[in-house]
Amino acid sequence: MSQHQSTVTIQEPKSQPRGKVGAMKVAMGSGGGGVKRGLAIFDFILRLAALAAALGATIAMGTSEETLQFFTQNFQFRARYDDLPAFSFFVGANAVVSAYLVLSLPFSIVSIVRPQAAAIRLLLIILDTVAIALISAGAGAAAAIVYLAHQGNSKINWVAICQQFGNFCQRVSGSVVGSFIAAFILIVLVIISALSLRKN
Amino acid sequence: MSQHQSTVTIQEPKSQPRGKVGAMKVAMGSGGGGVKRGLAIFDFILRLAALAAALGATIAMGTSEETLQFFTQNFQFRARYDDLPAFSFFVGANAVVSAYLVLSLPFSIVSIVRPQAAAIRLLLIILDTVAIALISAGAGAAAAIVYLAHQGNSKINWVAICQQFGNFCQRVSGSVVGSFIAAFILIVLVIISALSLRKN
Repeated sequence: MSQHQSTVTIQEPKSQPRGKVGAMKVAMGSGGGGVKRGLAIFDFILRLAALAAALGATIAMGTSEETLQFFTQNFQFRARYDDLPAFSFFVGANAVVSAYLVLSLPFSIVSIVRPQAAAIRLLLIILDTVAIALISAGAGAAAAIVYLAHQGNSKINWVAICQQFGNFCQRVSGSVVGSFIAAFILIVLVIISALSLRKN
Repeated sequence: MSQHQSTVTIQEPKSQPRGKVGAMKVAMGSGGGGVKRGLAIFDFILRLAALAAALGATIAMGTSEETLQFFTQNFQFRARYDDLPAFSFFVGANAVVSAYLVLSLPFSIVSIVRPQAAAIRLLLIILDTVAIALISAGAGAAAAIVYLAHQGNSKINWVAICQQFGNFCQRVSGSVVGSFIAAFILIVLVIISALSLRKN
């Protein structure tokens, strides 16, 4: 009987505790996974919002054009975003970030299905951070030029052009605001990813 | 006998596996702690580099001033950073980020001493991301104006001023480069923090 008992004590730890630990892992996983899944769904929704803001900013700036009608045929005044390199950079930066946000949507969906996948979160946090730097630099550059277009600069003798090109300026200003909103949402996305990574 | 056997099977899993799991945790903890400590030390060094870049950019831009000598006494040409709001914003943004980097150094030291403290890493990742957005926007704004100062814009009739204010432009350009370097180092810092959080 003693012989039999010792066999049992050796055998049991091998099989049963593994089952228990497994059960604990599943229980913890589903608890943490619930929070993570919630964060992942929130991440997906915010990603769509950021995409809307960035894409809207790209299109608004990219299609901005105003031609003044009261000039002669040989000398026509026209304002377009690509007259100013800062606005071209703005359009490029916002287009790249929009494309990235579209490409990141499948990864966001995967992290809803598999909330424990830390590698995806890590990838998203890194690329989101790069996107923040890119879109912020673009928005900052465009904002500086928009400010100059509105106010001019009397010391350097750079004239304000928004009296003439009112519609152009309005559209461009709205575009910059949209871009800053996208940057803000991207910051929230990084915070969400960091929170998800932490609860591992 | 069957009764006795069942008692054994209940007792055993309670004591032995816990010991095993505990030992595994300690082993994993010390292994991950080594990597984390390495990352934390790297974080501290990079933080000093980012501080140097941001503070250098702040000082270079903040002290930039050039007065042209060949004008009459009543009408003297002088270029200073605060003639342009974009440059003022640049100085403000870089000063704020520099101050934040100084204040973040103690936290970085704490995470060298206690590599497992996830809350500090989470705090640093969030504030670093905000700092990236701020310094990128400032650098983008200043870069847009610096480009304009170098090239001018013939369509809008904004003249280039760098022919006259060569030293001013050179200093301001260097300052913008420093600011972009600081932004780049901050991105690396976020990646390091994300890697540290992941290995929890």
